[in-house]
Amino acid sequence: MHGIGNDYIYIDCFDQPVPDNAPQLAREMSHRHFGIGGDGLVLIRPSETADAWMQMFNADGSESEMCGNAIRCVAKLVYERGIATKKRQLIQTGNGNLTLDLNVGDENRVDCVTVDMGPPELQSEKIPTTIANDGKAIAQTVEFNGQSFEVTCVSMGNPHCVIFVDQASDDLVLGLGPKIENDPRFPNRTNVEFVEVISRNRLRQRTWERGSGETWACGTGAAAVCVAAVLTDRCERKVTIELLGGELELQWDAETNHVMKTGGATEVFEGVWE
Amino acid sequence: MHGIGNDYIYIDCFDQPVPDNAPQLAREMSHRHFGIGGDGLVLIRPSETADAWMQMFNADGSESEMCGNAIRCVAKLVYERGIATKKRQLIQTGNGNLTLDLNVGDENRVDCVTVDMGPPELQSEKIPTTIANDGKAIAQTVEFNGQSFEVTCVSMGNPHCVIFVDQASDDLVLGLGPKIENDPRFPNRTNVEFVEVISRNRLRQRTWERGSGETWACGTGAAAVCVAAVLTDRCERKVTIELLGGELELQWDAETNHVMKTGGATEVFEGVWE
Repeated sequence: MHGIGNDYIYIDCFDQPVPDNAPQLAREMSHRHFGIGGDGLVLIRPSETADAWMQMFNADGSESEMCGNAIRCVAKLVYERGIATKKRQLIQTGNGNLTLDLNVGDENRVDCVTVDMGPPELQSEKIPTTIANDGKAIAQTVEFNGQSFEVTCVSMGNPHCVIFVDQASDDLVLGLGPKIENDPRFPNRTNVEFVEVISRNRLRQRTWERGSGETWACGTGAAAVCVAAVLTDRCERKVTIELLGGELELQWDAETNHVMKTGGATEVFEGVWE
Repeated sequence: MHGIGNDYIYIDCFDQPVPDNAPQLAREMSHRHFGIGGDGLVLIRPSETADAWMQMFNADGSESEMCGNAIRCVAKLVYERGIATKKRQLIQTGNGNLTLDLNVGDENRVDCVTVDMGPPELQSEKIPTTIANDGKAIAQTVEFNGQSFEVTCVSMGNPHCVIFVDQASDDLVLGLGPKIENDPRFPNRTNVEFVEVISRNRLRQRTWERGSGETWACGTGAAAVCVAAVLTDRCERKVTIELLGGELELQWDAETNHVMKTGGATEVFEGVWE
C-alpha cells in the first residue's frame, strides 16, 4: 500500500504469527530489486490499548516510531479486513496512540483517512532553532548561502523550516535544501519546505527531508507548512497542499490548536512471500 | 522474479487473458512507489512455434526484444507451473526462438537455467566499431580521455567494449564508461565492461550499459567478457563471472562457437493486482 507515494509492505499479524526476524525481513522485503521493494515494513499487530499496533521498520531494518502516510494505510487495512469496523480508530504507534477518522466510500472501501497530528510547537528552543524573535521564528528574515529568505520554523514532533518562494526550483530544493538542513542555527538539523502559494486554500510544497533528501510526501512537513502559512496570513486554516506524490488536506483547528491531516491510502497489490 | 537482481513482473497468460493495455500496465506496475516496482513487465503467452512466448515491456512502456536474465525466469515459471514439463525448452522472443536447459533441484524447483546465446560476432564493421586490425578489435591499444587501454570488442547482438583492468573503480566505470559509450569510434554507441581477472576461471565485471548507466547484471556483457578473456588468453573457455547482482557461469564452446550462459532465476513473491 502507499500513501501519496510513500510505499510500505504491510503484514497482517492478526491473521498469522508475528515474524521473529522483522529487522532482517524488512531489509530483504524492502529491496527494490531482490525483494518486494518498498520504503519499509509495517507489522499490524494486536494491541492491548488500541484497535491495532503499527510497528514500523525502515528499509535498512531500523525501527521507526511513526509515519503519517503509513498510518492511513494501517487504518484502511484494519477496517477493510474487519479487524475493527468503526470509522474512528485508535492506532498504537511508537509516539503513543493516535486517533484516525476514516472516510468510507463505495464497496465499503476506505478512500481517505484523517489523522490528528496534535498541536504545533512554535517555541524556538523546543524546535530547536537559534532563530528567535520573542522566542519564536515566525517570518524571520535570515541569510543562507548569501541570500535572504523569510523563514518560519515549526516543530510537529520534528523540526521544520518553511520558506515561501515564487518557484520551488531544483536550485532551491536540491541546492539550498541540504545547506539549510545542516545550518548551525538548527542544532538537531532540520527538514526544509519550499512552498508556492497558489491561492488562499491551495499551496504547492517540495520537501528536503532531514537525512533523506528530497521526498515525495512528508506529512509532518505539510502540517508545518499549513501552520506557517496561517501564521503569516497566506492561507485559510483549511488548505489543500500539493506534494510531489499527491495531495493532502490540512486543517489547523482554531479551537483545539490541533492540526488535522487528511490523505489517501491506496492498496497496490496483495501477495504471498515464502 | 529476478535473475541476479534484474527484476520483472511476470503475468501467466496461459492462465488468464492477455492484457490489452500492456504498455500502460507496464508503466503502472513497474513504478517503484505507486506500483509493484520492477524493471518492466513480461507477458508469458501461448506461442505457435515454441513452448511459450515471452513478450517484454520496459518500465517506460516501450517493447523490448529479449533479456537474458528475464528469459531464465520465464523458463522457471513455464516449468514449475506445468505449462511445459520438459527440461529443454524453446522460448519465443523478439530475437527468435531460443533454447534453454533447466537445472531442476529439490521439490521440482528450477534452480538455474542455461541459455544458448549463439556465436559472438568479432568483425569490427559488424559490431560496429572503427577500431580494427585485420578487421577485428582484439587486444587493441586505444586512447580514451588521454589514457591508454587495451580493448577487445565483441557483439552478442549488441556491441560491447571489454577492458581488463587491475581494479574496476568508480572512476573507470562511472567516469570513463559514459565517455567510451559515446566515443565516435562506436557508431551505434557501445556497452562497456571493466573486468578484473581473479583467476583463469573467475572474473569480476562491472558494466556500463548503453542508455542505462551502470547495471547489476548484463547477460550479453558477461558473454562478451568470456569471449574477450578467452581470445586474450586470460581464462579458460568455462568461467564464473561475478557481477554486482550475482554470478553467471559462461562457456564459449570450442566446437559450436556458441556461448552458453547459466544463471539463477528467483521467485520473490506471487500476488494479485486488481
